[in-house]
Amino acid sequence: MIDVQGKLARIVYESEKLVSNLEKLIRGCQILSIPIIWAEQNPEGLGSTIPELEKLLTGQKPIEKYSFNAFENESFKNAIIDSGRKQWLICGIEAHICVCQTAMGLLSNNFEIEIVADCVSSRSKDSIELALQKLQTKGAHLTNIEMCLYELVKDSRKETFKKILTLIK
Amino acid sequence: MIDVQGKLARIVYESEKLVSNLEKLIRGCQILSIPIIWAEQNPEGLGSTIPELEKLLTGQKPIEKYSFNAFENESFKNAIIDSGRKQWLICGIEAHICVCQTAMGLLSNNFEIEIVADCVSSRSKDSIELALQKLQTKGAHLTNIEMCLYELVKDSRKETFKKILTLIK
Amino acid sequence: MIDVQGKLARIVYESEKLVSNLEKLIRGCQILSIPIIWAEQNPEGLGSTIPELEKLLTGQKPIEKYSFNAFENESFKNAIIDSGRKQWLICGIEAHICVCQTAMGLLSNNFEIEIVADCVSSRSKDSIELALQKLQTKGAHLTNIEMCLYELVKDSRKETFKKILTLIK
Amino acid sequence: MIDVQGKLARIVYESEKLVSNLEKLIRGCQILSIPIIWAEQNPEGLGSTIPELEKLLTGQKPIEKYSFNAFENESFKNAIIDSGRKQWLICGIEAHICVCQTAMGLLSNNFEIEIVADCVSSRSKDSIELALQKLQTKGAHLTNIEMCLYELVKDSRKETFKKILTLIK
Repeated sequence: MIDVQGKLARIVYESEKLVSNLEKLIRGCQILSIPIIWAEQNPEGLGSTIPELEKLLTGQKPIEKYSFNAFENESFKNAIIDSGRKQWLICGIEAHICVCQTAMGLLSNNFEIEIVADCVSSRSKDSIELALQKLQTKGAHLTNIEMCLYELVKDSRKETFKKILTLIK
Repeated sequence: MIDVQGKLARIVYESEKLVSNLEKLIRGCQILSIPIIWAEQNPEGLGSTIPELEKLLTGQKPIEKYSFNAFENESFKNAIIDSGRKQWLICGIEAHICVCQTAMGLLSNNFEIEIVADCVSSRSKDSIELALQKLQTKGAHLTNIEMCLYELVKDSRKETFKKILTLIK
Repeated sequence: MIDVQGKLARIVYESEKLVSNLEKLIRGCQILSIPIIWAEQNPEGLGSTIPELEKLLTGQKPIEKYSFNAFENESFKNAIIDSGRKQWLICGIEAHICVCQTAMGLLSNNFEIEIVADCVSSRSKDSIELALQKLQTKGAHLTNIEMCLYELVKDSRKETFKKILTLIK
Repeated sequence: MIDVQGKLARIVYESEKLVSNLEKLIRGCQILSIPIIWAEQNPEGLGSTIPELEKLLTGQKPIEKYSFNAFENESFKNAIIDSGRKQWLICGIEAHICVCQTAMGLLSNNFEIEIVADCVSSRSKDSIELALQKLQTKGAHLTNIEMCLYELVKDSRKETFKKILTLIK
């Protein structure tokens, strides 16, 4: 999760929907025991992660970064590598800056990336669409909350499926 | 044909058009003697396939499944393999969940897939569009009823062409 | 040029614009001495090519065909091969049937194809867009009248450029 | 920067926004010491580069060309090669003619190209969109002013970042 901080988080395109979707995505990943790596760009300047999301991430701390591409940050890079996972979902803001650069950083290091399209935003809608288009031509795939959570659950008989269903409805 | 069942079939985006198109596609495949594999997700929970379509599929039974990716289901997988066919048209609901996961399951097993774009739907239009975009970047191609039926007929002098023409008009 | 015939040519999406654009494209190719191959699908049934275009193609006869993919027709195939050209512009109707199948026929025989997007149409706008999307994932590129004519002329100092400019303006 | 000249620069789609964006892009490149190659198509016929942009390019002269593909012009080609750079941003007009042909010229000579989508235009919106679509299928990527400048700056602690931020806001 990239940089959902301060004022910026309130002024991006469809920000209320974004925040509500991010809450669902965080809870969904927690239900499925999927690790979350949480980045903040220059928190002193831009403010902390918004409280709605911060309160869901109990027991975790954000990784402070200054490079737009989070993968250029040693702590973020180590968190990714130490997780042992090669596939990552990316969400946050802004789609065309930190989300895009981090996604490209991961792609060029041979990670498989899906951008959660209803969990990213930028100040302008045009920038979001352009970022999603660019990332697809760079090798990323698109998904959305439902698409990725159902794909991770796989089977409707699983215990976790009921929880995911309650979360989404 | 994936999971065109119960209430869900009535509340997806442009559901009346979807049902009418699915009727045409089923009839078209029957005219051209193309085998249809028919799946139902958790029929006890979600209801049976809607009667408009069920009545066209005489002499056939749906394959009951619980994995969203139908290809994870042994009976479905065997039906695909036993048919001997390497190319499949996919239709049904929801585009971004069971249709998408089944298509990706087939693609990663080296089947050639076309998604019949006017014969798939989801509750939201955004989810449909995202699913079609994702599937194209995964190697699926798009088609629609007319496009695929004319491609299968190939020649306007064929006996079957008149029937297809009557069906579509 | 694929099947711009009879009533169908009058009822496709934005048919007046299509006809006017096709006139320009034919004249442009004639100015640049680019050979035109002209197909008609089942002319007895669907009618002849519309007079606006037929009168421009003096000294040429249409190739009568019954397969939607014109490249399945021996005369059409020979005309393509005898021309010695490996790159073709495709225009005509319907984008999602004969245009699409012919383009795929040429692509799978290693021809390079550009679809002249403002010189193709279908009865529905959705079918046009789907066909253009599908053809791009199959390896075709898109162009339009101005884009392809300027690309063929290459240099504004050429004699032919003035004629092309007059034609387009 | 391709051919932002005379009357044409005033009549392309959203021309005021284009000019304002081009001013930002030029200034951004100057802040980041990125060389700018500046082309003019047949300046006697089409007029000079518009004064808003010309005045920013002090100490530089435009390269006069007559081929729509600027890379066919010896001076332009040498300027590109002498710069030693393999990656280029392309901006200017018209998206579907000189921008498109120059981009394809660079791509087929193994340069990496990004089209600055909010810094290109054509007389019609359709032509812009078609050009961007075609260039992506030819191997170009899309970007916009913010996306490319932030990608070039990389880190918010850099001296140049404040200047870029002032420029964009």
